[in-house]
Parts: sequence; C-alpha cells; structure tokens
Amino acid sequence: MTRTIGIDGIDDLARGAAVFGAGGGGDPYIGALLAKQAIARHGAVEVVPLRSLPDDACVVTVAMMGAPTVMVEKLPSLDEVVGPLTAMSTYLGRPVTHIACAEVGGVNSTIPIAAAAALGLPLVDADGMGRAFPELQMVLPTLYGIDASPLAFSDEKGNVGVLQTVDNSWTERIARVAAVEMGCSIMISGFPMTGAQAREALVDGSLQQCIDVGAGIREARASKVDAVGRAVELLGGRELFAGKVVDVERATTTGFARGSARIEGEGTLTVRFQNEHLVADLDGDVLATTPDLIIVLDHDSGEPITTEGLRYGQRVRVIASPADPRWHTAEGLAMVGPGYFGYDLPARRFDGTISEAAR
Amino acid sequence: MTRTIGIDGIDDLARGAAVFGAGGGGDPYIGALLAKQAIARHGAVEVVPLRSLPDDACVVTVAMMGAPTVMVEKLPSLDEVVGPLTAMSTYLGRPVTHIACAEVGGVNSTIPIAAAAALGLPLVDADGMGRAFPELQMVLPTLYGIDASPLAFSDEKGNVGVLQTVDNSWTERIARVAAVEMGCSIMISGFPMTGAQAREALVDGSLQQCIDVGAGIREARASKVDAVGRAVELLGGRELFAGKVVDVERATTTGFARGSARIEGEGTLTVRFQNEHLVADLDGDVLATTPDLIIVLDHDSGEPITTEGLRYGQRVRVIASPADPRWHTAEGLAMVGPGYFGYDLPARRFDGTISEAAR
Repeated sequence: MTRTIGIDGIDDLARGAAVFGAGGGGDPYIGALLAKQAIARHGAVEVVPLRSLPDDACVVTVAMMGAPTVMVEKLPSLDEVVGPLTAMSTYLGRPVTHIACAEVGGVNSTIPIAAAAALGLPLVDADGMGRAFPELQMVLPTLYGIDASPLAFSDEKGNVGVLQTVDNSWTERIARVAAVEMGCSIMISGFPMTGAQAREALVDGSLQQCIDVGAGIREARASKVDAVGRAVELLGGRELFAGKVVDVERATTTGFARGSARIEGEGTLTVRFQNEHLVADLDGDVLATTPDLIIVLDHDSGEPITTEGLRYGQRVRVIASPADPRWHTAEGLAMVGPGYFGYDLPARRFDGTISEAAR
Repeated sequence: MTRTIGIDGIDDLARGAAVFGAGGGGDPYIGALLAKQAIARHGAVEVVPLRSLPDDACVVTVAMMGAPTVMVEKLPSLDEVVGPLTAMSTYLGRPVTHIACAEVGGVNSTIPIAAAAALGLPLVDADGMGRAFPELQMVLPTLYGIDASPLAFSDEKGNVGVLQTVDNSWTERIARVAAVEMGCSIMISGFPMTGAQAREALVDGSLQQCIDVGAGIREARASKVDAVGRAVELLGGRELFAGKVVDVERATTTGFARGSARIEGEGTLTVRFQNEHLVADLDGDVLATTPDLIIVLDHDSGEPITTEGLRYGQRVRVIASPADPRWHTAEGLAMVGPGYFGYDLPARRFDGTISEAAR
C-alpha cells in the first residue's frame, strides 16, 4: 500500500509541526501554503517508510535556513525550493532519489513536501532530529558522522551555491553568513545519505507522528475532549503547568530570537528560549530542559504557540515530551544540551529526572 | 615554440605585478613564494598566447579574494590553491583546460602560476583587467556578459564552495561574506569561458608585459639607467610628480584599505586610494583618475610601493599609465570609474585629458 500526503493532510501536519517545533522552527503556515500549492500543481506526495529505503538510495534533507519571520515577507517560490536540489544533483553527479525532513518541527516539516511534490520524488517518513533546533549541524546524522555537505542553497532571486566543508559546524557558519547576505532566508539541501545511512540516523515515523498529533488536537477539540490532554497522551509527555502569560522578553540577536516568558498560575513558570524553548523552571526549580521538548499550548484549544506568538494575557498550558533517546547520549547533550546554549544546568528530562549522560 | 615560466621568471613578474597593482592587489611576495614552491615541485608552467586558444577550451580565472594582509599571516597551501579548481571541474562536469589571471596586478598575477604548476595546466598570457581592482565583478569579461559563476572557493582548512548567481555583483556579495567568515582570505576560481570568449574578453599579452616591466626596472637599475623612466617608457605612461611622502592616512573599513597620501615636491600631490590608487591631484588639480593606473615608485630604485608600504619620508615618483581602452567605455566607467568609488569627478586619463565616455 502506498501512502500519500495530499492537500487535506497539510493542516494537521502543520499543527503537529508547530507542536514539535517547541516554540521555534518558524510558523509552519508559509510552508503549508507552499506545500498545498505544489500538491495542487503536481499531485500528492508519496510517503515511504524509513525501513523500505534501498541501501543505494540517495536521500537528502530539504529545509529553510534563516529567520522564519523574514520568510513571511518574502514568500519563497517553488523554484527557490527546488533550486538547491538541482544544484545538489549536479554536484553529486547523480539524481537524488528521496527527500527527508531535516527537522519535523516548524516550517521545515512542510517545505520538503513542496520540494517532493515539485520534483515528483518520494518523501521519507522520518526526520533528522524529531523536533526543531536552531543550527544546521544539530541533527542526528551529525552524531553518526554523516556530512552536512555537499550542502546546496538558493534564494528567491535565483542565486545558488554548494558547500563542501571539513565539518558540519563549518557548513553552518558559511551557510549562515550566506543566508544573511542573501536576505535572511534561503532554502538548503544537504546531508546526502545512502538508504543504509538514513535508516540508521533518522528518526523513524516522525512525519506520521507529527500528523497524528496535529490531527489528535483537532479531533479532540471537535469532540469537546481536552485537546492538551490528548496531545500529552500522543506525545508520551506530561503537563508541567497551566497559567497566564504575564511577561515576555524578546530580543533578536545574531539571527536568533532569544528571551523568556513568565507564566503565572500556581507559582510562576519561566520559559527561556533561543528560537526553541530551552529551560522551564517553576519558582527556580528546573522542571525540564533541552533536548526534551517544552511546548506551550493554548489552554483550551490546544493550538501550539510559538515564541513569536506569545502575548500578555494568554491562558496557556505548558507540556514537556521526550526527545529521541540519542539526544540523551553524551555526544547528543554536548551538541544540544543546556550547556551548549549557555545554561550551566544538567539536562532534565520531560519527567523531571536528570538525563543519565548528564549526571 | 613553447614559452614557459620557471622559478627564475617569478621575481620579475612579481615586481611587474606590483606596478600593475597601482598601489593595491596585495603584496605579490606571498604569491611568488607559492608559485616558486609549485614550480620546484611540479616543473615550469607553459604559457600560451591568447590567440592560440581553441574555441572549445575551458578557461577559468584563479585568484585570491579577501584581505591580502591576512594572507601573509595564514600562508595558503598548494592544496588550497587547487581546491576551487577541483570543485569547478566537478561542478562543470568537465575538465578545466586553461588557467588565466583575473588581474595582472598584485598577488593575483602569481597565484594562478602556482595553480597551473600544481595541476599541469597551461596558463594564458592574458588577464581580466590589465591592472588590479578591488571587487570580483570588476573584470572585462563582466562587460562582455560573461558570468563570474560558477565560482568556486576554498580556504586553508579544506572548506570548498561553488556559487551560481544571477549576476556578477551577487557573486561578489556572497563570496565576500564567505571570505570574511572563512578567515578573510580564500582562493577562488570563476568566470569559466570558452576559448572564443576568452580571446574576446581578456587583455592580450598582459602577463608578458608584466614580466617585461618587472625585468625592465631590474635591468635599468643594474645598468645605472633611470629605472622609473624605463618603467614609464615600457608602460607608455607619463611621470606625474616627484617628491617626499609627508602624510599617510589609512583606515581599513568594510574589508578595504581606504585613505590618502600627501607627497611634497613642486607643490603637493595627494593620492587617494581604496586598495588601489584612485585619484591623484596636484594642489587641487586632478592629474589622473581610475581606471587609468596611478603608480607610486621608489625615487631611485624604481621599486613599486603599495599603499601598505607608503611611509613618511619616502622619496617617490608617481607615474600614470593607460588602462585597457575598454575601461573607458560608458559601461567600463560605470563599473570602475571615479563615480563608482564615490568621487564626483570625470575620469581623467593618464595624459590629463578627460575620458571621452565621461564627457
């Protein structure tokens, strides 16, 4: 049986992607628009299970890099989304056979659908991290020694580039300055993997899980069931706190949205973020940290709220859910744990326990 | 008859390159070292006349981009010089057949020799501008509509990239920020041309002219003949002024060395520069401007002095020489005339007349 994603599935996916975005990853709305447009023009996208990938497949990730807030102002075209894939094939000297999401959170869960539709390529039901993170090298393939490069990028003007770097942090550095110069928003394609590498390194089934969570929230709301509770159940997470947003501090520095939100309920919960939510503490007691997901949902509707969407007076519930277990290894925590983001804290799991590798 | 450049020819070329650098283009010393090293290891470089290029040749330029002052501190390796050529061939899907200098002034006259030696490729006796200019798009091929891209770049760490842009100014912009991020000095290869395109767009014989000027100054000095006079003769230029450097103002802003030097003799000559000398005026009367070459030479030895080498008390002579006539077209002046560099002046030729297109 072949599974496909059509226009009907996009809204659930986008809602789920905002949940897995954990406050960041950009508003999936633009990506959803683009995906719908591509499907309308080219037909539904075939979704294949990770385990079905042949060993000799050529799998690449597709994503938007830069400031998602800018993307809203200069809408990417399908040409722009396809640009890096064409350059990638030229550089590799062979065709790309499958597309994967680098991250299942935020805008980058829907952008790859647009690319897959436009090129008639199958999409893998998987992603590179099982959530959203702010930097290019922060994917599980990096932990498996898979190179981000060749990494191709393109902008809406038609400029295209390909990088072949000595490590994934250099890919991030050079692509980041190019992104800023090219208008703060570019499309990228990278991490070329064989089918065997992809099966090992990616998060299996995360695209479907994203759709399930998005659909679950919608259906719970329609059935007058507690939508937040349904999300917690589907994510295997726990609810941390409920309250009212009383303060949001936000600054955009070096291309990232950094800041914190205070939420008052039974005590005060502070959520600190850099694009994504990183640390949640209740009156000073840390409840959960990156790499586990800290997610803010509307109190009643269960709609996910990004850091940009946080407003004074909102009634919200904050939940936490487990990251892929590989993020809790010593290597994983070194890359995306609290320490990397400047917090001198051990990584605390969604359930309040300290991450083993961080002890 | 096959002409070659061996180790013996490099010093004359480097001296001539400092003359054609017109104050900028970087100290050719590092490039000369690298060229000698490559020739010692791989043998002399074959130099072919521009007119001998077959129509289907694949000619590319090779150059260093960034701050030449940085290059002195992080010496490029042969691997770094060859890096962009390998990436270029991969991207083009066919081998490069000939190497050309983008500029015959400064360090970029000798870097291509190192690349040609290391790869065993012939070098064309020609260059892209007949002097040095600070930005990547400022070459005659741009006037002929030849794309700078695909443009490949590499650093000493082994990072490599390829750009395919919508115009040559975008190549400059993206490569420039990459250069800064990669440590302010990268090697680039670009402007892929057919033999037919190269024959039309490049400056014929400029590499040999560079060697001739460098050798002429050396020989004149050895024969106790006026070295500056000999340079003026070989360049077909004129001497503007002789005097003593009394003041040098210099600031490095946005990656360029900007400033001016005052020279006292029969009146005061002010030379203004941005990497290269741009305007020379005597007590307020403009004597010569870009695109013609304004060159500062040591009063007695005739050794060229770059803007970085200007010091209080130096006795110097300032000469001017004609640029390639294509720089005096309306399109040429728009790209490299005084106006581009912020001077509200008509372009004044080496002989003091106003450039026709600028009237």
